[in-house]
Amino acid sequence: MTGSASDIGYLFEPRSVAVIGASHNPAKIGYKILQNIVNGGYRGRIYPVNPRGGEILGQAVVPSVDEIGGELDVVCTCVPSQYVFETVKTCARKAVKFNLVISSGFSEVGNIEGEREITNYATKHGMRILGPNIFGMFSARASLDMTFGPGGIQPGNVAIITQSGALGLAMIGKTAVENIGISAMISVGNKADIAEADLLEYLVDDEQTESILMYIEGIRDGAPLVEMLKRAARKKPVIVIKSGRSKRGASAAASHTGSLAGSDDIFSAIMRQCGVLRAESVKEGFDLCKFLSNTSRPAGPNAVIITNGGGIGVLATDACEKYGVGLLDDAEGLRETFGPVTPDFGSTKNPIDLTGGATSDHYAAALDAALENPAIHTVVALYCETAVFDAENLAPMIQESSRKYQAGEKPIVFSAFGGRSTADALSTLSKQRIPIFDDVYAAVACLGGLYAQHDYAKHPPERSVEIALDFAAIDAVLRGARREGRSFLLAAEGQRLMEIVGIPMPLSRMARNLDDAVAAAEAIGYPVVMKIVSRDILHKSDAGGVALDLEDREEVIDAYQAIMRSCRAAVQGAHITGVEVSEMVKSGVELIVGGRRDPGFGPVVMFGLGGIYVEVMKDVSFRAVPLGRAEVLGMMEEIRAYPLLLGVRGEERKDMNSVVDAILKVATMIRRCEGISDIEINPLVVYEEGAGSRAVDVRVLLASAEGGGPDA
Amino acid sequence: MTGSASDIGYLFEPRSVAVIGASHNPAKIGYKILQNIVNGGYRGRIYPVNPRGGEILGQAVVPSVDEIGGELDVVCTCVPSQYVFETVKTCARKAVKFNLVISSGFSEVGNIEGEREITNYATKHGMRILGPNIFGMFSARASLDMTFGPGGIQPGNVAIITQSGALGLAMIGKTAVENIGISAMISVGNKADIAEADLLEYLVDDEQTESILMYIEGIRDGAPLVEMLKRAARKKPVIVIKSGRSKRGASAAASHTGSLAGSDDIFSAIMRQCGVLRAESVKEGFDLCKFLSNTSRPAGPNAVIITNGGGIGVLATDACEKYGVGLLDDAEGLRETFGPVTPDFGSTKNPIDLTGGATSDHYAAALDAALENPAIHTVVALYCETAVFDAENLAPMIQESSRKYQAGEKPIVFSAFGGRSTADALSTLSKQRIPIFDDVYAAVACLGGLYAQHDYAKHPPERSVEIALDFAAIDAVLRGARREGRSFLLAAEGQRLMEIVGIPMPLSRMARNLDDAVAAAEAIGYPVVMKIVSRDILHKSDAGGVALDLEDREEVIDAYQAIMRSCRAAVQGAHITGVEVSEMVKSGVELIVGGRRDPGFGPVVMFGLGGIYVEVMKDVSFRAVPLGRAEVLGMMEEIRAYPLLLGVRGEERKDMNSVVDAILKVATMIRRCEGISDIEINPLVVYEEGAGSRAVDVRVLLASAEGGGPDA
Repeated sequence: MTGSASDIGYLFEPRSVAVIGASHNPAKIGYKILQNIVNGGYRGRIYPVNPRGGEILGQAVVPSVDEIGGELDVVCTCVPSQYVFETVKTCARKAVKFNLVISSGFSEVGNIEGEREITNYATKHGMRILGPNIFGMFSARASLDMTFGPGGIQPGNVAIITQSGALGLAMIGKTAVENIGISAMISVGNKADIAEADLLEYLVDDEQTESILMYIEGIRDGAPLVEMLKRAARKKPVIVIKSGRSKRGASAAASHTGSLAGSDDIFSAIMRQCGVLRAESVKEGFDLCKFLSNTSRPAGPNAVIITNGGGIGVLATDACEKYGVGLLDDAEGLRETFGPVTPDFGSTKNPIDLTGGATSDHYAAALDAALENPAIHTVVALYCETAVFDAENLAPMIQESSRKYQAGEKPIVFSAFGGRSTADALSTLSKQRIPIFDDVYAAVACLGGLYAQHDYAKHPPERSVEIALDFAAIDAVLRGARREGRSFLLAAEGQRLMEIVGIPMPLSRMARNLDDAVAAAEAIGYPVVMKIVSRDILHKSDAGGVALDLEDREEVIDAYQAIMRSCRAAVQGAHITGVEVSEMVKSGVELIVGGRRDPGFGPVVMFGLGGIYVEVMKDVSFRAVPLGRAEVLGMMEEIRAYPLLLGVRGEERKDMNSVVDAILKVATMIRRCEGISDIEINPLVVYEEGAGSRAVDVRVLLASAEGGGPDA
Repeated sequence: MTGSASDIGYLFEPRSVAVIGASHNPAKIGYKILQNIVNGGYRGRIYPVNPRGGEILGQAVVPSVDEIGGELDVVCTCVPSQYVFETVKTCARKAVKFNLVISSGFSEVGNIEGEREITNYATKHGMRILGPNIFGMFSARASLDMTFGPGGIQPGNVAIITQSGALGLAMIGKTAVENIGISAMISVGNKADIAEADLLEYLVDDEQTESILMYIEGIRDGAPLVEMLKRAARKKPVIVIKSGRSKRGASAAASHTGSLAGSDDIFSAIMRQCGVLRAESVKEGFDLCKFLSNTSRPAGPNAVIITNGGGIGVLATDACEKYGVGLLDDAEGLRETFGPVTPDFGSTKNPIDLTGGATSDHYAAALDAALENPAIHTVVALYCETAVFDAENLAPMIQESSRKYQAGEKPIVFSAFGGRSTADALSTLSKQRIPIFDDVYAAVACLGGLYAQHDYAKHPPERSVEIALDFAAIDAVLRGARREGRSFLLAAEGQRLMEIVGIPMPLSRMARNLDDAVAAAEAIGYPVVMKIVSRDILHKSDAGGVALDLEDREEVIDAYQAIMRSCRAAVQGAHITGVEVSEMVKSGVELIVGGRRDPGFGPVVMFGLGGIYVEVMKDVSFRAVPLGRAEVLGMMEEIRAYPLLLGVRGEERKDMNSVVDAILKVATMIRRCEGISDIEINPLVVYEEGAGSRAVDVRVLLASAEGGGPDA
């Protein structure tokens, strides 16, 4: 790809646009787009292109792009798919910067070759393609509606990137109804060239854009997206609606990491890693955008709920717990603040209950008090319709309070529940883009989103960590396996890999005779395990070839002799190589650490509760690679079993560092070693602090020859 | 309590009502209630009661209840709290059946004694109390609005029971705005006498009531509620909004069962047990009521999504997975049904994609086709606003299709997403009570609720199982502990309890000499464990007093001698009673089975993944007692680790019956043995089918003398 940050600006703020396939027929897309451009008030040069010439909507038609004088920043291509390549070539000759290929009939219907042809040609000639199979784009900064939508897009501060055309087009009307103003709306369609990451590059720094909403069905080439999302979410809220959480395909994966990664959890986990808010429904996404675009950063964690009804107060308390909003718990401070403004029989405990007798004046006074108290960082103001309340003052009171909070840079969210007069107030206030909801949960969810985003943004960006590994030695192991036509490593090769990267496995030594065995045990340290090594003895236990928990020299000698005796008796004439003497693995917390190449995100790591029931408990989390130490710790904290690492029931804290180290090493391998497709250590047994951990079993799958291009 | 099913009918359909404290002052509650009764069109006798006499709203005022001739079914009491007891006495004399005590100033402000006085007196005289501290009630069947709400309640088929007055009052307006019709609305307030269970008794059989919505903050005396909910949910949808999910108090509980039960999960689990749908927010509750009240029973599990946009189709697919709605997957059948009515480039795979080119005719044809195909049991119809669609036909098309589906008794839910014209259609359709939503998730959530409710309702009610136990023997054990002033059982007592009820623990025998020890081992079966028994030796392991995994007679003899030798050497002159020979517990799946008395629900049982990390993994579920075998199995299926019982990774299926048996025995004990407050078996180790399970450790707490009244 050839785009750079400075280039992408021309897409959003072009000096000139052409519509190839501009039509005289108002029923055609090539007319509709031109109409929206003209009606939208675009101030640059507009070139309708059509070999038939003439004039459309008062604009002189040029027969071909070739005949346009001066630079041409953006072109909209609305010709049937079979003519698109021809026009792409013409545009490339003209050095067009961006080509919005509206036309469908490409990879979405299986015409992958046609799409590739266009994209390759464009890329080679320094032209970027948006689409194909899109409805176009809108840019408020350029007053440019280059879509075939209904027109009338309300300018504002929410940017929308959508992979679904139909949904995007319907959003144009829906955002207007919901009073959501748009700074940019981009249809990305098949994403043959330009994808979300490219567009974010512009939107991150665009001052008009206060929040970014993305509708995503699938990710390709996720590494740059992850990097860009991390950057974007530090500057402004990014909300993603991801659909297509199908479980299909997951079961076919070869490793736990693969099978567990098939679920939707990996997407959610990586969005958390990037500080991106995940919305389930479009409604949730819109609510978050509306609220986050118009609300300042909270100065601290303490929220106060102000209500006139106990019931909705309790519901809001529940919602705060669900969405991670902390409630101020300083009884005395609250009494001081709200005592003077709370009616009799009210409560100054959080939720502050102004009682069913409250009027707009009570609310105004309580909201003023909350605004003035610097220990209160955010406010949830709830209203339940009552007969006593002066309904005609509801909207003005909220409007005025909202203005004051905006000025005071203190976040506030309102929820109002009731009949017709309440509905009217909601509608009035919503038109003024005041953050008000008719449902307590919707209101608090937005506040939760605000906190989640700012919690992410307030941490400084972290440098990704890569561990220096002996890649040449790793490669030698992989080459060895590949030479034998294997797509996996044998146990010994896996052990060798762990040794190279320095993830400790249980110590183990071959001993060919009794003296060797004793020496091995002394070197490893007691207790040890001893196992027969013989190509003729498959079932070692059955042949009496295994001895566990040998605690001293004497037991080793006894066990050696017993093993030899039983094995010779069990398998007459067996060729015995010797015994394997191994460290006896003490019990500890069993974890799983995995790495794999995700088809969407590229290299990812997995961490979770290990052991044989990993797929039953599914207590795992994921992160995209590369990642930093804090990100690894964040992933570890996400699993339910995390308290086991901190030490529960009188147990000691576990050796976290050794786990972080193992995860970072797996991350480095999966990112740097193209030959590896999956690594899985299960269990990684971790002991108390300072005692490290042991990779008891490791499984490594190799990338197929054609797959796994360079991710680095 | 003295109420009976026939009595409660008078509350909803009284032949006469009186308002005690009826006021001449329109600002007073005593005026407002009378006004609503009069304006609401109540057809029975109305008696305003006020010593000042005169006339209010055209109704002659009687000075006292005493002076009313004929029977008086219902009285509304709106006098200040200090006068309530006096009027209650008068009403009792008059043999009033139901007294709605509107007045506040009772237990909600700490006046528990005042409330008890009234209730006890009323109960003794056969009068039922609703409240105190309520806004009254509405009954559509009697056209009776006995509330001090805004009036104008829309009659319909949703019954609402609310514990919050403010929220309930606001619901009156909100239901009107949302076009939800009400069959009954009851404010239960402090629930001094009448609680949800009493009201359900009427509503279950009330033909006008198609669904029941309850807002609950707390449960008292849950056993009758559970029983009634189970009955109600078989006949019609019951939806509960439960608030107050605080985690406080949970950490103080003494057992795992207690601490895990402190969370909101117990409420959710018992609602599932009762077939009740749990709504989180009021909005969710309203959506479910609206849809479920007007939709017939699905004939089978197969849903079809019909859409004009791929994006919302995928979102709906996700939502179906989330809400447990099964999608029809018969490619050929779908092609046959929808092929003829799907435009070019559309898809006949589920979701059926009519493409962005679809018009109202396409929709009508596709919906007709789906209606006619008996393999399609429910339909999710999605619309994304497009320029091609004939917007003016959207509402009529949906209206007509909805009518046909209603007639054909096939459930259908609509979702429409778009701008102004879509919003107008939504509003028109909503007024006609057609199930349409502006969000795909909200629509599918309702369909999920429909399935959940019918899945419950289609199973015949289950007889509760109680195991015949030797209660006298259990009591003897409990009495012994109590005599010693203990609030818990010692290990040996716990073992004795398990023996009495027949939950197998690891076999164990005392042996006083070597011969005894050998005999014990032979009787128990190898391998065994041997432990010193001596009051002088506290740290058995340290003294060399423990031997594990003894596999035969010889090892038992060796171990016995070794133990005696070491112990005598370790503690000089120790008095040695003998050794305890026990079955060596093999490893299996470690479960937890608990029982306790919940402050709200009474006796409950808990089941989950056991072991030492039970509180970390929190993989448990709950049920109210009594319960049947299928309910126990339902509880077992709910835990994440359930597949372990079915056998994963080549392991055999576990002995479910032995687990069900243990749960039912614990359930019986916690229900029948008032002396027990908590029982907890952890771990209960379960083996492969036929091999049973072993209660390795059991903990029993005793009820404090004053607590734990009879639950049976």
